[in-house]
Amino acid sequence: MCPQPVTNGNGHSAQNHNSNGNGNGQLNERRAAAMPYQSVGDFLSNTDKFQIIESTLREGEQFANAFFDTETKIKIAIALSDFGVEYIELTSPAASPQSRDDLIAICKLGLKSKILTHVRCNMEDARMAVECGVDGVDVVIGTSHLLRTHSHGKDMATITESAIEVINYIKSQGVEVRFSSEDSFRSDLVDLLSLYKAVDRVGVNRVGVADTVGCATPRQVYDLVRTLRGVVSCDIETHFHNDTGCAIANAHAALEAGATHIDTSVLGIGERNGITPLGGLLARMIVGSHDYVTSRYKLHKLKEIEDLVAESVQINVPFNNPITGFCAFTHKAGIHAKAILNEPSTYEIINPADFGMSRYIHFASRLTGWNAIKSRVEQLGLHMTDDQVKSLTSKIKAMADIRPLAIDDTDSIIRSFHLDLQEE
Amino acid sequence: MCPQPVTNGNGHSAQNHNSNGNGNGQLNERRAAAMPYQSVGDFLSNTDKFQIIESTLREGEQFANAFFDTETKIKIAIALSDFGVEYIELTSPAASPQSRDDLIAICKLGLKSKILTHVRCNMEDARMAVECGVDGVDVVIGTSHLLRTHSHGKDMATITESAIEVINYIKSQGVEVRFSSEDSFRSDLVDLLSLYKAVDRVGVNRVGVADTVGCATPRQVYDLVRTLRGVVSCDIETHFHNDTGCAIANAHAALEAGATHIDTSVLGIGERNGITPLGGLLARMIVGSHDYVTSRYKLHKLKEIEDLVAESVQINVPFNNPITGFCAFTHKAGIHAKAILNEPSTYEIINPADFGMSRYIHFASRLTGWNAIKSRVEQLGLHMTDDQVKSLTSKIKAMADIRPLAIDDTDSIIRSFHLDLQEE
Repeated sequence: MCPQPVTNGNGHSAQNHNSNGNGNGQLNERRAAAMPYQSVGDFLSNTDKFQIIESTLREGEQFANAFFDTETKIKIAIALSDFGVEYIELTSPAASPQSRDDLIAICKLGLKSKILTHVRCNMEDARMAVECGVDGVDVVIGTSHLLRTHSHGKDMATITESAIEVINYIKSQGVEVRFSSEDSFRSDLVDLLSLYKAVDRVGVNRVGVADTVGCATPRQVYDLVRTLRGVVSCDIETHFHNDTGCAIANAHAALEAGATHIDTSVLGIGERNGITPLGGLLARMIVGSHDYVTSRYKLHKLKEIEDLVAESVQINVPFNNPITGFCAFTHKAGIHAKAILNEPSTYEIINPADFGMSRYIHFASRLTGWNAIKSRVEQLGLHMTDDQVKSLTSKIKAMADIRPLAIDDTDSIIRSFHLDLQEE
Repeated sequence: MCPQPVTNGNGHSAQNHNSNGNGNGQLNERRAAAMPYQSVGDFLSNTDKFQIIESTLREGEQFANAFFDTETKIKIAIALSDFGVEYIELTSPAASPQSRDDLIAICKLGLKSKILTHVRCNMEDARMAVECGVDGVDVVIGTSHLLRTHSHGKDMATITESAIEVINYIKSQGVEVRFSSEDSFRSDLVDLLSLYKAVDRVGVNRVGVADTVGCATPRQVYDLVRTLRGVVSCDIETHFHNDTGCAIANAHAALEAGATHIDTSVLGIGERNGITPLGGLLARMIVGSHDYVTSRYKLHKLKEIEDLVAESVQINVPFNNPITGFCAFTHKAGIHAKAILNEPSTYEIINPADFGMSRYIHFASRLTGWNAIKSRVEQLGLHMTDDQVKSLTSKIKAMADIRPLAIDDTDSIIRSFHLDLQEE
């Protein structure tokens, strides 16, 4: 039952929306026709100028199955840098001696991406991070009532004081610094804004908003980030867990509200069911910001990176993964297949060719239509009239109604039908 | 490397946030403390009074791998009805003779859920649907410029006329009727609103908004549904594809804006990478509408239904599936484990017990902390001082730094450390 690539009558792939040698003007017109309604533009929006903080080697290491040895970490870091992510974040050197050694090794690779590490808000961790040779340090502390009570036990004044001390130290070492609250969406808004304002005043490079428990909705994200955008002048990084399935949508809403940086991991691996996935974020962003996304990232390498990470942590790429899921560009219902064969953008908002992927029309099912069968007949190099194809289609639908049909089965039916025609 | 259940010192499961015999008042207080910031209440919002139109047997049949024989369809329909979904939608009887026979068979089961079928907007399909004995008919037609050009070729006046004819007929048969546009988010807004207004005037039960290509963002959904809410008086059903990973967030935004019905399928299976998944939607909704969701659906049967469907279409449940993904309630980083052991809601927005699931603390990794190891020591029935546990933790972290540790390995280290203590 695996699907098959679509080719047009000339044997050329029909997969590319833009494969007809059109100039850019025509391309843009077609894109505008395919997507007449964009979000109302907002002067705060950064949907076409965001940066990615790739955290597979930090958040991803917190995934249940993850154990990255040094060699794997280096492979992943090189692949991510080559892909074009602006930052790569690694586990704190305070976590274990090997974590520290790996961080030093990756800092020495001289990658294009900036190397960050993620530490608790204290001087000891900050010093250890700076000594590893990182480009930036991501400092974090829990600010919700729950985390203050059950995790570190500090009050907001103490948190602010130690944040300022740590930020001043890291800056004094000529290293970039981000300060993030943890569990931001369950923290007191006034506490949070006061803290961010204080760290902005001492010159932090970025503040971070983190939905550590995955509770936030896109409207909550938009509201909080938009409010914060009016309070601080520094960059705003955001981090979204996926417990309620909103991690991609929340990242998009954050950018619309003025966030500048999004945390991702490959396939979204991380604590529990993970965070915003790199590929899923780019699927979302390419729809509205095609030129920015394609110019900045080597999208055709996405599948390779996902396979590398999936293998390292021994998981399957989910069937429903955006872009690279096995059926992300598979069309089955007859009514869909017909329109797709006429014009791919009827049922596709993303051009698979942008990611080096192919479109498939599933023709071996009871839901098939004669347009899909006609396309397959042409692929097999056979010639039939439309009426002959329609009668063949009824035959295939009748057989597919009884049991699942494999491609091979269906091809045999087509060939035998064609043979009968010749002999008549 | 598989994780292990958490129990407290008495050997009882510590998984239930609410397992201490608290009254409802205390429960609500704890919930309020865990989630101090709800979305600003909107008088349009239906987040605590929505209904589910479960489309595994229609949209799900369009999934690349799906072939449901009659027996499987009946099994799935019974399970969904028992779970509590309000509607079950099946493939059009016009798709194939077997589709028609299966629809008739399921209508005769007398399930608690209402049975719908999904047909093209023409009299022939509508008649065939009604004759099968359904409770309701979901009528659909493409309204985007692209679908009008490349699919059916009809103009808006013709669409409106045939919609009214079909709706009047279905209503005259005493059957519920929904009218939906296809590809609503790429249709002309004025065309769309005129059409919905016309069908509302003739008494359609529901209008449907469908993001057929998966392009919509939550803010676009909110805006369109909110506008539509002011134009029609009937119910509003919404249908979201997941190409850009926003299908759950879009469903939530639609309910906030006044939609009344959400289309789902089990695990989200459908055309391409599918639609809003049943389990994912409930993960999202339970956070804000705990009592509505738990009172209406048999949540502890979710995993069973997901396993049934996954097996029927030969897929794995994605590792990152909300609620039932293998690591959805697994905590790994030492700092998380410590807080979770003190108070689960620190890092959990959903109580796994509501879905009959368990929490796990992953203790066999370099990221572990002494609180997680202490909990394991207690589970093994051993006694150590905190200082002894801390020294044991360093030993485990050092070994986990070199290679992945299995639970068995770690338990051996713990036991041998404990033995050494006895002998000292």
